[in-house]
Amino acid sequence: MSQNDQTISCKIPTEANNTSTNKPAEIKADGSFNRQTNRFTTPFGNQPDELPVESGRYRLLWSAACPWAHRSVIVRKVLGLESSISLGTVSPLRPRIERVDWEFSLDKNGADPVLNVQYVSEVYKNADPDYTGRPTVPVMVDLETKKAINNDYFKLTNYFETVWAPFHKENAPDLYPSSLREEIDALNDVIFHDINNGVYKCGFARSQEAYEQAYDQLFTRLDELEERLSKHRFLFGDFITDSDVRFYTTLVRFDAAYYSAFRTNRNLIREFKNLWGYARDLYQTPGFGETTDFDAIKRHYHLSITIDPAKGEVNILPKGPDESVWRTEHNREQLSGKKEKFLI
Amino acid sequence: MSQNDQTISCKIPTEANNTSTNKPAEIKADGSFNRQTNRFTTPFGNQPDELPVESGRYRLLWSAACPWAHRSVIVRKVLGLESSISLGTVSPLRPRIERVDWEFSLDKNGADPVLNVQYVSEVYKNADPDYTGRPTVPVMVDLETKKAINNDYFKLTNYFETVWAPFHKENAPDLYPSSLREEIDALNDVIFHDINNGVYKCGFARSQEAYEQAYDQLFTRLDELEERLSKHRFLFGDFITDSDVRFYTTLVRFDAAYYSAFRTNRNLIREFKNLWGYARDLYQTPGFGETTDFDAIKRHYHLSITIDPAKGEVNILPKGPDESVWRTEHNREQLSGKKEKFLI
Repeated sequence: MSQNDQTISCKIPTEANNTSTNKPAEIKADGSFNRQTNRFTTPFGNQPDELPVESGRYRLLWSAACPWAHRSVIVRKVLGLESSISLGTVSPLRPRIERVDWEFSLDKNGADPVLNVQYVSEVYKNADPDYTGRPTVPVMVDLETKKAINNDYFKLTNYFETVWAPFHKENAPDLYPSSLREEIDALNDVIFHDINNGVYKCGFARSQEAYEQAYDQLFTRLDELEERLSKHRFLFGDFITDSDVRFYTTLVRFDAAYYSAFRTNRNLIREFKNLWGYARDLYQTPGFGETTDFDAIKRHYHLSITIDPAKGEVNILPKGPDESVWRTEHNREQLSGKKEKFLI
Repeated sequence: MSQNDQTISCKIPTEANNTSTNKPAEIKADGSFNRQTNRFTTPFGNQPDELPVESGRYRLLWSAACPWAHRSVIVRKVLGLESSISLGTVSPLRPRIERVDWEFSLDKNGADPVLNVQYVSEVYKNADPDYTGRPTVPVMVDLETKKAINNDYFKLTNYFETVWAPFHKENAPDLYPSSLREEIDALNDVIFHDINNGVYKCGFARSQEAYEQAYDQLFTRLDELEERLSKHRFLFGDFITDSDVRFYTTLVRFDAAYYSAFRTNRNLIREFKNLWGYARDLYQTPGFGETTDFDAIKRHYHLSITIDPAKGEVNILPKGPDESVWRTEHNREQLSGKKEKFLI
């Protein structure tokens, strides 16, 4: 994956971003969606020019709606990093002020209780007063300076899985085993381009051709992974890896949001035999379902991203689908050689 | 069904209908959708004050997108009235001119070849220069005067089934048997309020409460009919009636349009065991599938009714779902006492 492709998460390329020309930001001439690149990508590590790994020093900001932020929150929980990295949560509904932002309106007084900021844009401005991109989550904030120091969602989970190991809980699983990293990275690239970002490429396309190309690419990949998951309980066998986390965050949003809001309507995920069992298997695994907020997901995609109430667009939340189906039996453990549930 | 409930078909209650107040037409104070009443309701018959039943005298105008018009075109075909009543077809994409209209843009030179009109509104104006409602389909037009003479879609199929009997083809089925009329009428009322118009009440609601009430009513009825159709091949047994035609026109549009565009997203129809088999059974019956135009349906609901490209809303047609599933085996004939397919 090239640096240019490591693009920023959860943002809306609406007119609000480019009021002078009224042309949506991040839309190429052919109508296809092209994510902006990340701004803060200094790695975590032990080298002098890297971000120091220190318990209690950083705050992770996320929205429960955002798949890019959700992956980091799942990994944080699965690895037991909660006490080392605190968590600030913004509303799934994006305010439309000067530009599209993320807002701490779920907190008392509308401000993050630790950073005492009202909008995520504030920590970006603290880090770079000239920052002109959209403020995005996930972002790691240095508590001392209140500056955004890393918004590189593509690599953030890998930092949590590797250099943050000293702070993992006892018996934390290895989500990024050395022997598999090359394969995981390669699959993560595919998942990123065709699935995680693939649904956005469908939803944000501004030409029929760009939309249909993204749609075909998306479902071709889903069909491939449906086949792969007919033989293996998880993507790399009997154990969960970083790739499963990344795939999950799109799968769990698919039926509730993307199918309608992003026009990814060839099939629902619950219509795929293996993907549906696999997605429920993960949902029912500690760290996954408990960080999944369907209400936030639905409100974000149906009320905030795809419509603009200020323009008189209809502000009604779809009632379906029924989310209780996520707790139904999946029997995926029968695919496992060990015949026992993966333990976290 | 009271006269007030016999409301006009296929229209969009947008701002275009009421530009002075910017309040959508046909929306009550509580945000619920309330169809306007029909204007031309003189019955067909043999009494002096009724519309004479004459072969070759009238032209039926329809849009393939419109469920209210589709029912009359199915019945016309099933009964063999094609040579007695000619058919004019408007585009599924509604023009936005002075008010929302239906346009003959599919025809050469953009005009109906028989009536030589460009818009359906013209035949309404011919009949009533002061007509202020929206022009709707289906509408029966007198070829001599080019006037709209009946747009009573609720009763139109019943006229075709009864007083138009002299022009039925040989061995045409009885879609409205005398002995069942009371029951058919009662079921038609339920189908109208909770299903045919129920999906519109979901899609056109302008308050969350009105939407959710319509949604609950819709799926309660679908669940009831799912149960009823577990025992009977068709709604009244082994034979097709007017009620089946009315139910079909909503079912066949559901997955392709209403589920997303009208937020009727508890379940797809293809997720109901009996409704899905029943809908395919009808689709595969002469007169039904051949008058079903999925492309027109999708373009109407996704590009014309729910978005306004003039406002910069995104003009992209969802690629899914795959319509070939409508031609798959349904095995519903096993429910039939006669064990043979209903013959038309």
